[in-house]
Amino acid sequence: MLRLRFQLELSYEIEPPGCDFIFNLQAAQTPQQLLVSELLGNSQGLPSQSHLDPSTQNRYLRLRAGAGKLSLNYQATVDLDHVQTAPELLGEVAVADLPAAVLHYVYPSRYCQSDRLHRLAVQEFGHLPKGYGRVLAIRDWVRGRTSFLANSSTGTTTAVDTLVEQVGVCRDFAHLMIALCRALNMPARFATGIDYGLDLSLRAQDFHAYVEVYLGQRWYLFDPSGVAIPMALIRIGTGRDAADTAFATIFGGVRGAAPVIQIEAIANAGGQLMQPVHVTQGLSTA
Amino acid sequence: MLRLRFQLELSYEIEPPGCDFIFNLQAAQTPQQLLVSELLGNSQGLPSQSHLDPSTQNRYLRLRAGAGKLSLNYQATVDLDHVQTAPELLGEVAVADLPAAVLHYVYPSRYCQSDRLHRLAVQEFGHLPKGYGRVLAIRDWVRGRTSFLANSSTGTTTAVDTLVEQVGVCRDFAHLMIALCRALNMPARFATGIDYGLDLSLRAQDFHAYVEVYLGQRWYLFDPSGVAIPMALIRIGTGRDAADTAFATIFGGVRGAAPVIQIEAIANAGGQLMQPVHVTQGLSTA
Amino acid sequence: MLRLRFQLELSYEIEPPGCDFIFNLQAAQTPQQLLVSELLGNSQGLPSQSHLDPSTQNRYLRLRAGAGKLSLNYQATVDLDHVQTAPELLGEVAVADLPAAVLHYVYPSRYCQSDRLHRLAVQEFGHLPKGYGRVLAIRDWVRGRTSFLANSSTGTTTAVDTLVEQVGVCRDFAHLMIALCRALNMPARFATGIDYGLDLSLRAQDFHAYVEVYLGQRWYLFDPSGVAIPMALIRIGTGRDAADTAFATIFGGVRGAAPVIQIEAIANAGGQLMQPVHVTQGLSTA
Amino acid sequence: MLRLRFQLELSYEIEPPGCDFIFNLQAAQTPQQLLVSELLGNSQGLPSQSHLDPSTQNRYLRLRAGAGKLSLNYQATVDLDHVQTAPELLGEVAVADLPAAVLHYVYPSRYCQSDRLHRLAVQEFGHLPKGYGRVLAIRDWVRGRTSFLANSSTGTTTAVDTLVEQVGVCRDFAHLMIALCRALNMPARFATGIDYGLDLSLRAQDFHAYVEVYLGQRWYLFDPSGVAIPMALIRIGTGRDAADTAFATIFGGVRGAAPVIQIEAIANAGGQLMQPVHVTQGLSTA
Repeated sequence: MLRLRFQLELSYEIEPPGCDFIFNLQAAQTPQQLLVSELLGNSQGLPSQSHLDPSTQNRYLRLRAGAGKLSLNYQATVDLDHVQTAPELLGEVAVADLPAAVLHYVYPSRYCQSDRLHRLAVQEFGHLPKGYGRVLAIRDWVRGRTSFLANSSTGTTTAVDTLVEQVGVCRDFAHLMIALCRALNMPARFATGIDYGLDLSLRAQDFHAYVEVYLGQRWYLFDPSGVAIPMALIRIGTGRDAADTAFATIFGGVRGAAPVIQIEAIANAGGQLMQPVHVTQGLSTA
Repeated sequence: MLRLRFQLELSYEIEPPGCDFIFNLQAAQTPQQLLVSELLGNSQGLPSQSHLDPSTQNRYLRLRAGAGKLSLNYQATVDLDHVQTAPELLGEVAVADLPAAVLHYVYPSRYCQSDRLHRLAVQEFGHLPKGYGRVLAIRDWVRGRTSFLANSSTGTTTAVDTLVEQVGVCRDFAHLMIALCRALNMPARFATGIDYGLDLSLRAQDFHAYVEVYLGQRWYLFDPSGVAIPMALIRIGTGRDAADTAFATIFGGVRGAAPVIQIEAIANAGGQLMQPVHVTQGLSTA
Repeated sequence: MLRLRFQLELSYEIEPPGCDFIFNLQAAQTPQQLLVSELLGNSQGLPSQSHLDPSTQNRYLRLRAGAGKLSLNYQATVDLDHVQTAPELLGEVAVADLPAAVLHYVYPSRYCQSDRLHRLAVQEFGHLPKGYGRVLAIRDWVRGRTSFLANSSTGTTTAVDTLVEQVGVCRDFAHLMIALCRALNMPARFATGIDYGLDLSLRAQDFHAYVEVYLGQRWYLFDPSGVAIPMALIRIGTGRDAADTAFATIFGGVRGAAPVIQIEAIANAGGQLMQPVHVTQGLSTA
Repeated sequence: MLRLRFQLELSYEIEPPGCDFIFNLQAAQTPQQLLVSELLGNSQGLPSQSHLDPSTQNRYLRLRAGAGKLSLNYQATVDLDHVQTAPELLGEVAVADLPAAVLHYVYPSRYCQSDRLHRLAVQEFGHLPKGYGRVLAIRDWVRGRTSFLANSSTGTTTAVDTLVEQVGVCRDFAHLMIALCRALNMPARFATGIDYGLDLSLRAQDFHAYVEVYLGQRWYLFDPSGVAIPMALIRIGTGRDAADTAFATIFGGVRGAAPVIQIEAIANAGGQLMQPVHVTQGLSTA
């Protein structure tokens, strides 16, 4: 059982007359991602309203803040105990057999224009045996042809842009991989979280975006950008793409600073300090 | 109480080895749209599997068809008894007060890139009093600057394309209106249905696409293309945009003919034949 | 010496009050493409004004036509005597050594967004030895991943669209190949002409679009769509892309029919009937 | 006679093994823009090769630089003596009467997709009397709906993007205005230069981009971004759009700093110090 503790701080300078926030930054709770403890606070002492989306299990927090400075602090400890499945057991699911709730993730979305990529996806991946291996091939294709470069994309960059320009950040790698999976009728969704990075010298600790693909009868994790150890990804939210899963949606005039995030592996309930490692099995938190 | 009866026939020529269909073409059932009777059949005598999406009330039908010809027939009689609300009572809802289930409809989607239209929406409509009247202004703006022209758009045409090129079909009018509403933080969704058209000489009877905007505490109907009488729109499905609400999603090789659709107003349970008319009140089926 | 004779007929129905045409449909005259004879007429007996573009050698014809029917007939006989160069002699030219008049063809243009394709072009072709062989590799890459499908693109389809959707007509194949060459700093231009097709059963005889790339010290021919025998391409116009080289630019309301085109190889001045064949040398008409 | 003196300095850090530059930063010489003196130097003491483009009068400078630092200095003094024409004399020219050399500027180009804007241009400006006043209406429409915001666009931003997102820098204002003019069959071109700004507190002195439209029988100046006094624009280059008229095109690995530019009005040959002013007449340098 891997136990991770993280904390994050978001800081804003809010213009009059204030603004509304919808945050989605608390760790999701699933049978495989258990919340040991969490603590949430804000510098204005504001009340917040929370709700759980029944279809995604995303946890939303609404807050109405006045003008001035606002900082939001969140810390949590989670136990991760993924379902681990041998790759050969992870087949693709025929459309006819997909659960109704999963079907939406086959359709194109704002940043994942799978409707334009059918020919390309079939040409590149149509000849491969269906299943986990084919998804890995898509992940590796995206990773191999896309350069990770900070600030190379914007909030409106799409999977098609990333396909063409071959550069982006984790969000863009995820969108392109999702679009290609959907173009082959595989349900795929966008996940946001905190990653326990291999090499922090490469970049500041930040929110991370990755991919979940529906195989067998679960959603399995993939990290197309290759900067994280999938086993240590703490899931916050999932959705069709980044349009659904912003960690903060802001309605009003605001200047924000970069989030400050820390994460570490700590001793679990049994007193053991486990470290995340790369594994060949498929990993699922749901 | 307006009673409408309609029937539709879809015809396909399916390539070997057959294909999977997901249809969303049955009339929705809501307190304001009552299903009096319906009949569904297909020429291959195939069994189908149906489910109701709990969040949208869309009715899906899954079918696995063999190669060859397939035709699908559906007829239904519905009673429409809209909630009718005076425009001055239909205010916009502050984001902080939106029900959680409605929030998704503020975000951009595949064909409605509201994230690119904030400045334009604020410039064109930001000065108007909030509420039903502002939504009508958006509808009229879209209608006034866009030409209705058959075959002028494709399945990948977006709201931004329609904004730029000023031409489209009902789907495109709806996408542009939705994108503009969302750019102003108004939840808006895409609706598909059958319309009781004013003037059939203008075009063959077809599926129709229109818009619902969340005002007060309900979803209200708008028909930006202006070809329908909103009161007589029979709702089939709703979703974020056309990506969510295809009347048929097809996984396999197929040639399809244009749907054949007929609709008429008939005598209601009280023996009265009501005819749809244009009204100034807001109309809601949900 | 290959001698080809072709004729073409364009038909229009012009709305009042008439309109202006700029045609670019006469065979270019170059030292390698000699004009033996030509004949031009129009059904309204209209005078026309012609000029030769000094930079491209394109021949333009301006015509002001009244409302009603207009048909334009053109027939020409040309002798083709290409410069034929061994591939190993066809090196790429360093930017520093490019003639000034050629430089414009390194820049992106309306339908050839080479500025977005640098990374992709370098990834796919950057490791190849420079020269004719690399251009063939680009041509084959475009040909291998793009499906030729009539009516699959429109007048606003770009190289990026074709890259993404992998389908198009000869114009789209040419735009994509040009964009990739320019992304590698190779001057490339769009050429229109008449092709002596291998297999007319595949498609109606039509205008053709192909590519010229500047290598050594000339422009060499490439046919990315693969439907023509390059040796038998009769050049009409060249430009940066299709925006520059429409066979007819029309200012006014017009309905046009598909052009009717015929072409045949005939006996040359020496009485010999040569037939076009595929060759491994580079071919240049300029 | 307005006499302006300006100097500019460009600084680069060049990666091994060096790179090729094509500069277009020297003041154009026309009967209305006389070059009194100029001085050009570079810190590596490199030889350069210059040529004049016969069709645009642009002055190009080619340079091959080694790795390391390179700075380029240019200073020039010019006399500006515009053709000034009363607006009522500046009619639009019928396509049939346009000089052949001007025709290219009616076609769409990389960043000016006039082919997508016909309906919009006709809807917004089709009802206005043709001529200088209509061009001013286009200029004011672009200026009124677009926000000037530094760093809001990139090198691949197009007129359609600016139309949709309503934000940009001078380059983007120019592209949108050009695209709208061409959509109405008015030849329009992109011009780069140095502007004698009204209010330098607004922004650092930089290269400027503006528009020339062909009216009567000349190219007349327009400044859609509204930050310059048109009379004091020193023309450097013209082309179809920014793809043609970069002040520096660089083939190799380079980091560049922002250009440092200074400009002032000085006493002319007659000893008079004239200051640029806004005028109602059309101004032309060519």
